[in-house]
Amino acid sequence: MSISLDPSLLSVAELHRAVEAGDLDPVEVVLAHLTHIRAVDGSIQAVVDLYEDDAVAAAAAQREQIASGHPGGPLRGVPVMAKDLYDIEGRPTRSGSLASPAGPVPESSGAIHHLVDSGAILLGKTTTHEYAYGVTTPPTRNPWNLEHVPGGSSGGSGALVAAGGVRIALGTDTGGSIRIPAALCGVVGIKPTYGRVSKRGVSVCSYTLDHAGPLASTVEDAAVALNALSGYDPRDPFSADVPVDDYLAELGRGIAGLRLGVSEDYFCDRLAPDVAAAFEGALRTLETAGATIVGVSIPSVWSAPDVVTAIASVEAASYHRERFETCPELLGEDVAAAIREGLLVSGVTYVDAHRVRARVISDFERLFTQVDALVSPTVAMTAPRFGSTRAPLGSTETDVLSALNALTVPANVTGMPALTVPAGLGTDGLPIGLQVMTPRWGESLALRIGAAFERLTAEGGPARPVLGT
Amino acid sequence: MSISLDPSLLSVAELHRAVEAGDLDPVEVVLAHLTHIRAVDGSIQAVVDLYEDDAVAAAAAQREQIASGHPGGPLRGVPVMAKDLYDIEGRPTRSGSLASPAGPVPESSGAIHHLVDSGAILLGKTTTHEYAYGVTTPPTRNPWNLEHVPGGSSGGSGALVAAGGVRIALGTDTGGSIRIPAALCGVVGIKPTYGRVSKRGVSVCSYTLDHAGPLASTVEDAAVALNALSGYDPRDPFSADVPVDDYLAELGRGIAGLRLGVSEDYFCDRLAPDVAAAFEGALRTLETAGATIVGVSIPSVWSAPDVVTAIASVEAASYHRERFETCPELLGEDVAAAIREGLLVSGVTYVDAHRVRARVISDFERLFTQVDALVSPTVAMTAPRFGSTRAPLGSTETDVLSALNALTVPANVTGMPALTVPAGLGTDGLPIGLQVMTPRWGESLALRIGAAFERLTAEGGPARPVLGT
Repeated sequence: MSISLDPSLLSVAELHRAVEAGDLDPVEVVLAHLTHIRAVDGSIQAVVDLYEDDAVAAAAAQREQIASGHPGGPLRGVPVMAKDLYDIEGRPTRSGSLASPAGPVPESSGAIHHLVDSGAILLGKTTTHEYAYGVTTPPTRNPWNLEHVPGGSSGGSGALVAAGGVRIALGTDTGGSIRIPAALCGVVGIKPTYGRVSKRGVSVCSYTLDHAGPLASTVEDAAVALNALSGYDPRDPFSADVPVDDYLAELGRGIAGLRLGVSEDYFCDRLAPDVAAAFEGALRTLETAGATIVGVSIPSVWSAPDVVTAIASVEAASYHRERFETCPELLGEDVAAAIREGLLVSGVTYVDAHRVRARVISDFERLFTQVDALVSPTVAMTAPRFGSTRAPLGSTETDVLSALNALTVPANVTGMPALTVPAGLGTDGLPIGLQVMTPRWGESLALRIGAAFERLTAEGGPARPVLGT
Repeated sequence: MSISLDPSLLSVAELHRAVEAGDLDPVEVVLAHLTHIRAVDGSIQAVVDLYEDDAVAAAAAQREQIASGHPGGPLRGVPVMAKDLYDIEGRPTRSGSLASPAGPVPESSGAIHHLVDSGAILLGKTTTHEYAYGVTTPPTRNPWNLEHVPGGSSGGSGALVAAGGVRIALGTDTGGSIRIPAALCGVVGIKPTYGRVSKRGVSVCSYTLDHAGPLASTVEDAAVALNALSGYDPRDPFSADVPVDDYLAELGRGIAGLRLGVSEDYFCDRLAPDVAAAFEGALRTLETAGATIVGVSIPSVWSAPDVVTAIASVEAASYHRERFETCPELLGEDVAAAIREGLLVSGVTYVDAHRVRARVISDFERLFTQVDALVSPTVAMTAPRFGSTRAPLGSTETDVLSALNALTVPANVTGMPALTVPAGLGTDGLPIGLQVMTPRWGESLALRIGAAFERLTAEGGPARPVLGT
């Protein structure tokens, strides 16, 4: 059997079922994906490495298993990619930096173990902004317009999923690094609750803000991925021993009767006009599905960007100081400058930031006694052009980093789940994201809201860019 | 009925039973305690405030309850004192400092609520080293020798329990502040697992190291107190929602077959000769009771003092900066100097300390797969004289703070339980403590070991100082 497969045409569940039924050969699936990835990657430069031999061998082994009736996991036959921040046994973890060791690591990260145990086939690694410490991910391109950035730091995963290379790719999220590229590339991304997905063997940016999680083509694909990824890892000190929901169970339940909060001030006051319009449209769609929109206010959320800056700069400086001191010339200018500044931040500033953080968390906990979820745009603008450093937002202008992560950092401060789903295109033809934030361990609800929105806005499957524009 | 009651003659359980049976009148119990406290406090200066009217009113109400058959908690009729770091509704919390607000606080702390809900009668407040940030507690005196310090920072609670003023007094422990005064004053003290006892409404020294807990006359009294104090407090962000053992249930079980670790290097290499001899004697006693002594090594424990210094100095500076900047003249010289230094510590030093802390925790977790508990002296020396700043230890000399807290800080770093029980007197006639450290949530085991040791060493009840020497 030889197939010419555009992986974006089948959902993860459909692909898995076809493989299990013997209708698709896992080896052919892998080869078709690799062909497609190679075809698109010349334009988007989202791939760091492809592990063709290992992937084909894994697929061949699965073919034997299936033929012999050996039971397999819910991702058997499904190709996936991982941001080059995740350790994979026998491969180097470069974290987008020349300063990283070039040698292979001895053990795969906890999340990779979970995926592989579920049957996923690892095809290779995607690009990351250096040490996940930035939001543009050079040299990767946005597949919707190659002159624009894909966002970051999980820019490779966002661009590759958007270009149809895989349906599931791992990312990490310290200030929005899953949600920003997912939103700017028009795919789904979920930052789970802090402690939900193991971070063991994932290179650290800011250990109290970092989260591991998936980018995916659809909400259902994201739910399948999160089912596989979630669970307690006793070897990760930040992992939580909390029961895992079946994230597929409530996807179809709809959102009639849900109370969805909208914070007019912080989350809506400085949006690009096309993002504001798309968000207004999204609210009307959610109302159509039976949800009630409730205006809310979260006074302390205004401190979220400063909290993330203080905490991330100190924690990243702690983790990267030795590298910074021994081989600064191997670091990108932006990352070196951030580490240099982080080394100068006082301990009291850092602890004060954590104390403010506690207040933000408590405000969100209170908020979620009033509403079921909070919705907002994911990013205040569409993807900026390569090399932009300033971004116009409403009547003001700000730096690109602040423009891109302002609406995503609150969920890193709180550690609560946040999902982004595509919400149309801006006037420049670039994607816009709708963000759904829920209380701790509320991934299931976030996905359910995202799925309802998706059903009303993307009936024929996810919108896809035409590459090469 | 009028009684002349030395409160030290009845255990908490005996006193409670006598009150419940109508053999003792709670009002008389309170008055007898107050008389005894006033009699000893002229010498030891351990009391900040006595709430005679409130205490008598509470006792009178209990008398009515008992007469009418109204059920009460396990501490009904039992007088207790609290370190002046705990909020008590309608009273000021001075934390041993002129810089604290003089006005009454609106609400009692979580621990006080728990005690009062169990029927305890609050007699008043005991002294603390200023903001719990020190180990000497001026002007309080050690009842065993008034020229010597009681230790700290819960020095008032240690001295008052030792002098027979109450059987239970609350303390707090950031680097040993429950265990040091308990050991130096010859009473029992337990620092529970981090998160076991609510810290809501307790003034902060170092929020990731602070613990609330009791000092008491005997292990049984401590167990009764801990039963009342323990439990989840949803309003304390550091409180843990973990089931509470009945700490009395296993007190009599003995220790035959237990493996008790002894770390010859860190915990035993710099002890005053009489402390070393007392500890050797304690080990023989524990062997007599059927325990096996096992030599262990915990490489990372050597970093515990530096970890506590870095973390406490930054966290205390964060909590006290405003006070330090607005009214430095109201702070003691030692506390002002510590805050001044804390303001200069870098964020990276602080985060690095937490990373080392994680290694210490993991070393202790591994240790507790090899042994059931770790035993050591509680303090490397007996109580120093007032005004001592240097202490001879073995062949070296060190500052008093380091001499006093070296063996207690590891359990603050790990957040695991640590108990101290009296283990005889030094050549100077001052008390020596035996420390029992157990894994997270292992309070029950620590108390069981302490009770077995106590049965073999203090048959006729706890040794008591003769006041006025």
